Amino acid sequence: MIEINTPWVQTVALNPPTLQDNTADADRLISALKATIQSDMIDVDLALLKKLPALLRKWEYQVRCIVFKDRHRWLLTGITDAADATTPIAGLAIDLGTTRVVLRLIDLITGRTLVESAFDNPQDAVGPDILARIHFAEQDGGLDRLHELIITGLNHAITSLCATIKLNPQRIYALAVAGNTTMTHLFMGLNPRWIIREPYIPAVNKPPVVKAGAVGVRVNPLARVLIFPNIGSYFGGDLIAGILYSEIYKNEETAILVDVGTNAEVVVGNKNWLIACAGAAGPALEGGVTRMGMTAGPGVIDKIAIDPDTREFKIHTIEEKPPRGICGSGVIDLAAQLYLAGMIDIRGKFLPAQCGSRLNEIDGLMHLTVVPSDQSGTGSDLSISQADVDSLIRSKAAMYTILETITASVGMALKDLKRFYVAGTFGSFIDPRSAITIGMLPDLPTDSYKPLGNSSLGGATLALTSADGLEKMDRIRDRITYLELNVNQEFMNRFSAAKFLPHTNLALFPSVKV
Amino acid sequence: MIEINTPWVQTVALNPPTLQDNTADADRLISALKATIQSDMIDVDLALLKKLPALLRKWEYQVRCIVFKDRHRWLLTGITDAADATTPIAGLAIDLGTTRVVLRLIDLITGRTLVESAFDNPQDAVGPDILARIHFAEQDGGLDRLHELIITGLNHAITSLCATIKLNPQRIYALAVAGNTTMTHLFMGLNPRWIIREPYIPAVNKPPVVKAGAVGVRVNPLARVLIFPNIGSYFGGDLIAGILYSEIYKNEETAILVDVGTNAEVVVGNKNWLIACAGAAGPALEGGVTRMGMTAGPGVIDKIAIDPDTREFKIHTIEEKPPRGICGSGVIDLAAQLYLAGMIDIRGKFLPAQCGSRLNEIDGLMHLTVVPSDQSGTGSDLSISQADVDSLIRSKAAMYTILETITASVGMALKDLKRFYVAGTFGSFIDPRSAITIGMLPDLPTDSYKPLGNSSLGGATLALTSADGLEKMDRIRDRITYLELNVNQEFMNRFSAAKFLPHTNLALFPSVKV
Repeated sequence: MIEINTPWVQTVALNPPTLQDNTADADRLISALKATIQSDMIDVDLALLKKLPALLRKWEYQVRCIVFKDRHRWLLTGITDAADATTPIAGLAIDLGTTRVVLRLIDLITGRTLVESAFDNPQDAVGPDILARIHFAEQDGGLDRLHELIITGLNHAITSLCATIKLNPQRIYALAVAGNTTMTHLFMGLNPRWIIREPYIPAVNKPPVVKAGAVGVRVNPLARVLIFPNIGSYFGGDLIAGILYSEIYKNEETAILVDVGTNAEVVVGNKNWLIACAGAAGPALEGGVTRMGMTAGPGVIDKIAIDPDTREFKIHTIEEKPPRGICGSGVIDLAAQLYLAGMIDIRGKFLPAQCGSRLNEIDGLMHLTVVPSDQSGTGSDLSISQADVDSLIRSKAAMYTILETITASVGMALKDLKRFYVAGTFGSFIDPRSAITIGMLPDLPTDSYKPLGNSSLGGATLALTSADGLEKMDRIRDRITYLELNVNQEFMNRFSAAKFLPHTNLALFPSVKV
Repeated sequence: MIEINTPWVQTVALNPPTLQDNTADADRLISALKATIQSDMIDVDLALLKKLPALLRKWEYQVRCIVFKDRHRWLLTGITDAADATTPIAGLAIDLGTTRVVLRLIDLITGRTLVESAFDNPQDAVGPDILARIHFAEQDGGLDRLHELIITGLNHAITSLCATIKLNPQRIYALAVAGNTTMTHLFMGLNPRWIIREPYIPAVNKPPVVKAGAVGVRVNPLARVLIFPNIGSYFGGDLIAGILYSEIYKNEETAILVDVGTNAEVVVGNKNWLIACAGAAGPALEGGVTRMGMTAGPGVIDKIAIDPDTREFKIHTIEEKPPRGICGSGVIDLAAQLYLAGMIDIRGKFLPAQCGSRLNEIDGLMHLTVVPSDQSGTGSDLSISQADVDSLIRSKAAMYTILETITASVGMALKDLKRFYVAGTFGSFIDPRSAITIGMLPDLPTDSYKPLGNSSLGGATLALTSADGLEKMDRIRDRITYLELNVNQEFMNRFSAAKFLPHTNLALFPSVKV
């Protein structure tokens, strides 16, 4: 078991007071801690101070202290019996997604993950997306209800999570929360009203470090809650967490980090500078538009290969269950394979001769059957329409244009990027070869592509397991230059050029050969 | 109206956000404040953060900020409309006495006193003194009850105080509390149990700055509460406040500060060093032992003159009401005058020939009638017994011995002291001439004696009206060397020599001539 290099848990052996050495209990402990952590700035909470004299005597002045570094000082957050070294002292990393919330319980001494869990964001009950929730927050009691929903959801999850490893939630002394700007606001109970109204101003960019008790999270009420800062209404703490996790902010080489979704958020940079932007890519990349589109799950098509000679489809589904639908990475595979098999042209139009009997007109729109009804898990054909492909092409063109624009803004070309991080589930499932083939991602060596997985949770974990997590997230936030994407003539020209497979300028995609 | 030099209230004119300047509300405000108060360390409370966006818009980004300096950072505690410059932004200084609590409401912008009030400490209901209360605190629910009593008492007083000037208590943004170590503990809800048990350890020497809401004081819940630190169980924050108020900690010349009571607390020092001690002087100096003794009030004898030739008594009472009793300063005057009139000898024994018909034996003990029944306000003789005088002499001898011991400990003599501060009501009423005559205070020029009045309240006021009040109180506390008074042979020798009027060594009291 490797001890990580964080100062959160300090074992302190005090000399009990005597007539000659009569410093008060709190001052005695803090003075010892000052020497240990080499800081003069340690505060103690009144609630802990009340318990301190009895606890110090009970444990004969041999204690473990949980200390936490705020922005401007250290805080003594808890003390435990030094003799009890078996019960973990825990931290909780939270990826606070609009749709899904993921929790990771961490041992604050070893840095080891104790257990993880996830649940659907219960705010979905009042609105599936940010916009609906912000409107709901404006109703009477709406904000309180949204705050309560997420906190109650978290509390249920924490109770279950702790139960699985028989840990008292009071042993959780630190939290790190990464979420988009709206979710972060709702978590704190801040009114998100102005986030969606010009000029789109959050209540706060750098949230204060708060006590768990102050937001209602049922762990140790004095547990400090680190909340990732945001750049603005549309570039949230989840992305700052991603940057922290990807480490692009500390490398010499310039890298790019992309979080793909309805909104594509992109960061380009290195240890000297960071530039970020966010833009609408459309829901097609998430598999959201096709009638057969769905999020990843058992029976969902995640990989497709089409034999270029026989045009036979080889379909892979998650858990190899009968196919029920297709996810974002499956759609990209499908488009790439259709293109390589000559079944769609460079504009993405179905070529009837090559598609053969798979192509049928339904309601005046051409549809390509991906899985016939007798092989599907739904009993119906799974098909993709011309409109779906058109939509995918617009989305991938928007994505590529955003990547090209941000890279050009710092005088670089996409081919200059040494590493290309793709965040999220999408990043884990996507086949870079397919994404390159359709011209959604630039034609870099495929080993440049690094899926990051849940980088929001990864960043939150790092915030708890690094001594300088808070400084790092603040520094990353402050160093980012936010590029406002103006949909001007240049952008439109780039977009038009990208609306082909893989691109109008084939020289940009030398590896794609039909 | 002179503006004092405190930074607590800052008027900030912000540029409202635009698409080009889209910093969040809180960060916008804090950034402006950082420039104004020239500190990078400003935190904002979550409770205030929740209200911030709506308030900033309501007041069109023109606000007054109440900022408060903690030990390690600044805190944005409140914001008000910049256009409303008439309603005061207030602070509350509290002298938290065991017997009596005094409040002073202060305008935080001008430093001006708005209004004052006082009330009897309602904890008296469970115990008149510290010891009784600490024992009560150990009963089930006892500590909570004591905490609740003082907080409820304060809340009633605050409500009345604010009503007299029609101020909303929410406009009180800062508190400073000076009290002895036990009272300070009870105010915070800290268990005082170990204060009276060897080795006499308080829970805390330097209390954290807490929120009013956290201790239950009903002012603005975010108001910061500065609590004066203590040196130990028997040298409390009220004395640190006294040192702050007396300014002895910043003068070149060495001065002494005495707080006279059942316990005498003494500080000697200058800008380079401070030494302190506390010792039992006995209740006689407060008028507590004589049967006719009482605390100052209408009809209480505070001054006495005896014509050395006619031995006629000239008696002055408070508010010139018929005499009902005698207070501490009256007892000292009486003893000095009896001695100067030759009615008691150097050991304090009544001289029957000189006392004449005033002297009577009651219950085997000689009593001197100070006010005969036909002139008294009680209808009975007001008299002082030989035992009373003996007790006074022991008390004054103990007092003088403590003064001599602490001064000698730094290699000085009492005559080297340039200023002699006497704190409290006692200090305001006492006639230094009489105190010198009986040898309670050293024979310094009478203009060396400076009554300080309520120096605890004065110090608390300074803490709110100085930019560096908190640093000062911490620095004073840290600089004090506490002298443990050992009742050794030397102390006993000094005490024996001081048990005469004015002293065995008359050379120490050249101005006292019988």
